[in-house]
Amino acid sequence: MPRYKLTLEYDGTPFVGWQVQAGGVSVQETVQAAVMAFCGEKVNVQGAGRTDAGVHALNQVAHLDLERDWPPGRVRDALNAQLRPHPVAVLSAEKVTQAFDARFSARERHYLYRIVNRRADLALDRRRAWRVPRPLDAASMHEAAQQLLGKHDFTTFRAADCQAKSPLKTLDRLAVERAGDEVRVHAAARSFLHRQVRSMVGSLVLVGEGKWSANDLARALDAKNRAACGPVAPPEGLYLMRVEY
Amino acid sequence: MPRYKLTLEYDGTPFVGWQVQAGGVSVQETVQAAVMAFCGEKVNVQGAGRTDAGVHALNQVAHLDLERDWPPGRVRDALNAQLRPHPVAVLSAEKVTQAFDARFSARERHYLYRIVNRRADLALDRRRAWRVPRPLDAASMHEAAQQLLGKHDFTTFRAADCQAKSPLKTLDRLAVERAGDEVRVHAAARSFLHRQVRSMVGSLVLVGEGKWSANDLARALDAKNRAACGPVAPPEGLYLMRVEY
Repeated sequence: MPRYKLTLEYDGTPFVGWQVQAGGVSVQETVQAAVMAFCGEKVNVQGAGRTDAGVHALNQVAHLDLERDWPPGRVRDALNAQLRPHPVAVLSAEKVTQAFDARFSARERHYLYRIVNRRADLALDRRRAWRVPRPLDAASMHEAAQQLLGKHDFTTFRAADCQAKSPLKTLDRLAVERAGDEVRVHAAARSFLHRQVRSMVGSLVLVGEGKWSANDLARALDAKNRAACGPVAPPEGLYLMRVEY
Repeated sequence: MPRYKLTLEYDGTPFVGWQVQAGGVSVQETVQAAVMAFCGEKVNVQGAGRTDAGVHALNQVAHLDLERDWPPGRVRDALNAQLRPHPVAVLSAEKVTQAFDARFSARERHYLYRIVNRRADLALDRRRAWRVPRPLDAASMHEAAQQLLGKHDFTTFRAADCQAKSPLKTLDRLAVERAGDEVRVHAAARSFLHRQVRSMVGSLVLVGEGKWSANDLARALDAKNRAACGPVAPPEGLYLMRVEY
């Protein structure tokens, strides 16, 4: 059976998240329904990362197996024709070997968290970023964030329902930069715990507002206790940017 | 009566345009209703540019006169509280003299037109950009665009319903650049004819697709005839970026 690697863009707003689940429409089942409508095959589309409800993706990666050997460009165009009513698009489709697994072959996942730091409500970026009205010191956030790099027990920054076997993860990048009234947090790791990026961003905002020192952030990590985490940042600011294999 | 200058951001999607008109809700009446709800005054909010239905603004400028002398920050916050259900935000409010007129004092208007040049439909940029599937040569578009700079009779690039007295306008900037799969057209002039930017962008896309040469664009301008214009670019890619005074 030929295996295809899909690169997908989606607006997370109308979905319950990537993963099929009760209680709403997921991106995964939307793509699976498009495959069914295109070629009549009932497939499992395996994604690289299980983005939460409201979280966006510029380049989510997924794989699927089809009975028939379609040209990849045909798969891309046919799925896009079916997906048109939904804010999901297939940017590319490629043939890969059965050794490729979107989830398990991933070597690095890159996320961006967008904060708009201003008093006025969001108009064009509504449901596309988190508005934080109090002035943020992005340089302090960046400096404090560097303490989280490397291999740590990230229990503090892990959702209660996280299914990972171990809370040990290696964080490769956590960079904070300001561009006008936007504060961007770039995070990269081989894999993340559930809600790890949003949990880290929520605590970094406390640092940026001057409510926490860099030491407070280090102590929160060392506590290895969910209760030590700041408020979790909302989903609408988070983007799965790319996955490296 | 104190006069206030407002700087506004809006998502043009749900509106019939800036200007009050029959057949739908305008940004102007939405802001005027917010003023009424805030302080009970029925005012005219005069904008710098009459953006069309679906056209966005990052920094539209408008002025209004109020009976009472409110602190500008109070005007901004109170209007935002009323505007919250709508994708319109007041970024700033300033006190100005009666000599300031958002429309007639404007010295330069800057627009951006966003084209996403790819086969896949738009997901995150749906209603935020124009998708053009055929590959565009942005360098050729930029080179051809330079012929439109300066003072010309822009009748070719003017909507049939344009109310300007003269088709003579001075175009100060028309720059085309590529950033990844996005092609951005930057336009600046003291003032524009109705649909001038979208008309110029539509013709530039013909150049980018190789259907028109730079000479064809020059001939279209020289024709001074609406029929010589290429297809008008759709509104959702256009942004009023800023107004200089």
